Amino acid sequence: MNEEQLKKWKAKRQKRRDSFNSDGLLSGILRGDLQALSSGITLLESNKKEDKAEAQKLINSCLKYSGKSIRVGVTGVPGVGKSTFIESFGQFVVEKGFKIAVLAIDPSSEKSGGSILGDKTRMNQLSVLENAFIRPSAAGKSLGGVARKTRESIILCEAAGYDFILIETVGVGQSETMVNSMVDFFMLLMLAGAGDELQGIKRGIMEMADALIITKADGDNLIKARRAKKEYENAIHLFPPNENEWIPKTLVASALENYNIEKTFETIQSFVNQTKVNGSFTNNRKQQDKYWLHETIADTLMTNFYSSERLVEVIAEVEQDVISGKISSFEGAEKLMKIYNHE
Amino acid sequence: MNEEQLKKWKAKRQKRRDSFNSDGLLSGILRGDLQALSSGITLLESNKKEDKAEAQKLINSCLKYSGKSIRVGVTGVPGVGKSTFIESFGQFVVEKGFKIAVLAIDPSSEKSGGSILGDKTRMNQLSVLENAFIRPSAAGKSLGGVARKTRESIILCEAAGYDFILIETVGVGQSETMVNSMVDFFMLLMLAGAGDELQGIKRGIMEMADALIITKADGDNLIKARRAKKEYENAIHLFPPNENEWIPKTLVASALENYNIEKTFETIQSFVNQTKVNGSFTNNRKQQDKYWLHETIADTLMTNFYSSERLVEVIAEVEQDVISGKISSFEGAEKLMKIYNHE
Repeated sequence: MNEEQLKKWKAKRQKRRDSFNSDGLLSGILRGDLQALSSGITLLESNKKEDKAEAQKLINSCLKYSGKSIRVGVTGVPGVGKSTFIESFGQFVVEKGFKIAVLAIDPSSEKSGGSILGDKTRMNQLSVLENAFIRPSAAGKSLGGVARKTRESIILCEAAGYDFILIETVGVGQSETMVNSMVDFFMLLMLAGAGDELQGIKRGIMEMADALIITKADGDNLIKARRAKKEYENAIHLFPPNENEWIPKTLVASALENYNIEKTFETIQSFVNQTKVNGSFTNNRKQQDKYWLHETIADTLMTNFYSSERLVEVIAEVEQDVISGKISSFEGAEKLMKIYNHE
Repeated sequence: MNEEQLKKWKAKRQKRRDSFNSDGLLSGILRGDLQALSSGITLLESNKKEDKAEAQKLINSCLKYSGKSIRVGVTGVPGVGKSTFIESFGQFVVEKGFKIAVLAIDPSSEKSGGSILGDKTRMNQLSVLENAFIRPSAAGKSLGGVARKTRESIILCEAAGYDFILIETVGVGQSETMVNSMVDFFMLLMLAGAGDELQGIKRGIMEMADALIITKADGDNLIKARRAKKEYENAIHLFPPNENEWIPKTLVASALENYNIEKTFETIQSFVNQTKVNGSFTNNRKQQDKYWLHETIADTLMTNFYSSERLVEVIAEVEQDVISGKISSFEGAEKLMKIYNHE
């Protein structure tokens, strides 16, 4: 690098630093500036110590402008057509005069470093719209880390005036429970097929859904999709009732033919209306805030424990003793606790 | 108290102490002595410090004789007929030449001090049988405490030679997930009725069940029960497949008419055969051991945190700040962590 290059690089770095200044970002975000929102999220994803303090300041300033969006979780296995569905849905919402943000959580990157959400770039039509913001989540080492970043991104998007915030996951890991704990409405996308509607979906996710949407209901698929819808409708009636009194809806939809995209939107609206009237909308948000307070504490305590240097070497050993029946789970736990507490 | 009374009282106390001696208890338990088993469980339920060490010794000695039973979870709301069903099932199992132990978990006593399992004493016919052992769980202050006592009771019952161990819960709280994590087979008892089959059952429990049993299928109820069975059967096929490849079974049964009690037994047997062949039986047990090791650590860390004197006064305050949107959940958590860590 010659002197001029170095100078340029330093200037660029400084510019980046400046753009990470929370005051500057705040006014940009409140103006709805996409670049500021994007930099804000990058800032809160940063693991640098100096960035963390700025990120905290930014979130605190955004908090009072947050809370007004409808937060929607969207899940479904790869191949179900999440991206095309979200693209159609997003365009519809924008045409209705709303602003929509899409945050995608990619649990695969935790383990493999690879991405199953590489297809994010495929949302070509949505991403060019002024009132749409699409952001794949940064990979986090822990689910707790991803959760925090996503929750904080929601706050920033809300401060930037987005009316709908979609949180997208792939329905195969633990991230669905996490997403369910940070959204108002949870949608499960499924394919109609010969008994393989739920291949790959984790048990328990179905009972979380506020709406089951059978996708790709076009052409030859339509009849199959309608049959599946009927079956799921019957099944849903056998589920225990929700506390919020909402009866989960089943829909067939086609992003290709723009079929029932509007109905999906209306379903979310009637959910919001109903739960705002009976108070469960606000109550759910409060419960979620409380949940994340205690969940974060739990996550921190556990992370501190399992990253303790004194334990690294013995954990596997104790686990083995427990699995082989040499000591009970409880004795194993006590043993590790004692080491952790220097006893 | 005169001198003679005092002497008698001291002798009685000594006798009780002796009977709580782990060596004495161990030989009794291994002989299958009911009194020794009962005292053993009382010992591990004791919160006295000197008893705790003895209890640990006893469990450690019993561990190598444990693991050979079939552990079955039974859940269902009050009124579904759990006690009568278990009584019929228990008698059948005993007639087949097996020994059965019933451990009942009573989550209501955590909060109210009262008991919804007061009907335990109603298992008159089962409790008099030599090869049956019925024990309501001691109330615990925390779910973690109840879990530990139940898991340890299982170890003692297995050392005493019981072939089947039933863990009973009421299906309305968090204890089902806990029980599901300590049994091989999980049964959900339900009533057939006009849409109220699952009234009171928590969402998610249905997807845990290895068998759904529609009880009181006698007299006028039989037709309704059969219809409900068909509906649930259809619903189950829509659930995501289990990792162990077991397809949950649906049965109608009547304890009154002894109808399908044998079929319930056969269902459990075929589950055990199938999962032992494909390895998931043993694998599930190992996963459970590991789960309880880490769950106990989490429980201990959380209990220590929330019982910290420094925090008692501020927790409610921080919670309020979070719920009202003054600070984020994450900032709230950090604040509490700092106080906890004397920072």
